[in-house]
Amino acid sequence: MIEKKGILFVLSGPSGVGKGTVRKALFEKSTDLKYSTSMTTRNSREGEVDGVDYFFKSKEEFESMIEQNQLLEYAEYVGNYYGTPREYVEKTLQEGKDVFLEIEVQGALQVKKNFPQGVFIFLFPPSLEELKNRIINRGTETEDLVRNRLLAAKAEIEMMDAYDYVVVNDKIELAVDKIQAIVQSEHCKRERVAQEYKKALEADFS
Amino acid sequence: MIEKKGILFVLSGPSGVGKGTVRKALFEKSTDLKYSTSMTTRNSREGEVDGVDYFFKSKEEFESMIEQNQLLEYAEYVGNYYGTPREYVEKTLQEGKDVFLEIEVQGALQVKKNFPQGVFIFLFPPSLEELKNRIINRGTETEDLVRNRLLAAKAEIEMMDAYDYVVVNDKIELAVDKIQAIVQSEHCKRERVAQEYKKALEADFS
Repeated sequence: MIEKKGILFVLSGPSGVGKGTVRKALFEKSTDLKYSTSMTTRNSREGEVDGVDYFFKSKEEFESMIEQNQLLEYAEYVGNYYGTPREYVEKTLQEGKDVFLEIEVQGALQVKKNFPQGVFIFLFPPSLEELKNRIINRGTETEDLVRNRLLAAKAEIEMMDAYDYVVVNDKIELAVDKIQAIVQSEHCKRERVAQEYKKALEADFS
Repeated sequence: MIEKKGILFVLSGPSGVGKGTVRKALFEKSTDLKYSTSMTTRNSREGEVDGVDYFFKSKEEFESMIEQNQLLEYAEYVGNYYGTPREYVEKTLQEGKDVFLEIEVQGALQVKKNFPQGVFIFLFPPSLEELKNRIINRGTETEDLVRNRLLAAKAEIEMMDAYDYVVVNDKIELAVDKIQAIVQSEHCKRERVAQEYKKALEADFS
């Protein structure tokens, strides 16, 4: 019997597109995916819980983990660090379970370098106007930050070509449906399963 | 606005695996796919309807269509012809609708040559024993034909590597779910949609 490894799914996309909301809605429906909580040095927003939404760390703690190569990826974004602890991801995949990351675009590109066999999903805004509204409605950003975030978003959208799938976030339910379909279909990819099936049948034929 | 073409999905797999049953169950649930009815020269089985299950043709009619290049693919299988009329498929894709073919392995490989951009799904038997039972339970085959079909099935399974996805037909409902997930996720493939999305956003940014 072949040891079956899990699949790494990475959900990413421009700032303000609604990655966190889609991820939460997905995990309310889907139980097979294991969510890898990111680490960050940014301040927690109202309602965010340490260890659930993010691991909130000081800049010093974060930089120490960078030095010890304990992060699968990390990025500095609008003055804060964001990163993914390496150990949890590798252990979980080895156990045959799928891991789900929800991270910024810079981080996703680093994961792609380290795990090209991962599946990369780009969450796309329904329109620029909508993206701007979502950033403003957060109410946590100054006007300058909004402008910076929009410019960053444009640059991030240019990086779409590094991804396997593009899911438009027009309605959360629809985006979640599509992500679930991607997860299910990736498990049917021939290059992942052909060897296993052939072996099972060889045993029958002998 | 980019003219959006439909996607060609091809369901295939060894004789007796249950392609027809899965296809019927799929079309009872899904309405967006357009089914392209195959042509055959084999005798109709009990309950099969001309123009629904197959277009039943004489050998002479079929060979005339081959000569006039009106078939997207055709194959001879256990002494009978099976084929796919070309015109319906091309017209429907052009209109932006997905086309679904359910055909034998030899035919699928020909379609792959003509339409490498198609999506090829291999329906896999849960076990060899189960495949044998299904062929026997059809009750339409002699013992020699059963043996021939099993040998053909083994050869066909070797051709799995030409396919994009492998779906095991252990339970019809599960197989249908997986095929629907594949259809949905293929519509999110970055190489299919990126250009369209970028253009939409460029318009917003200008």
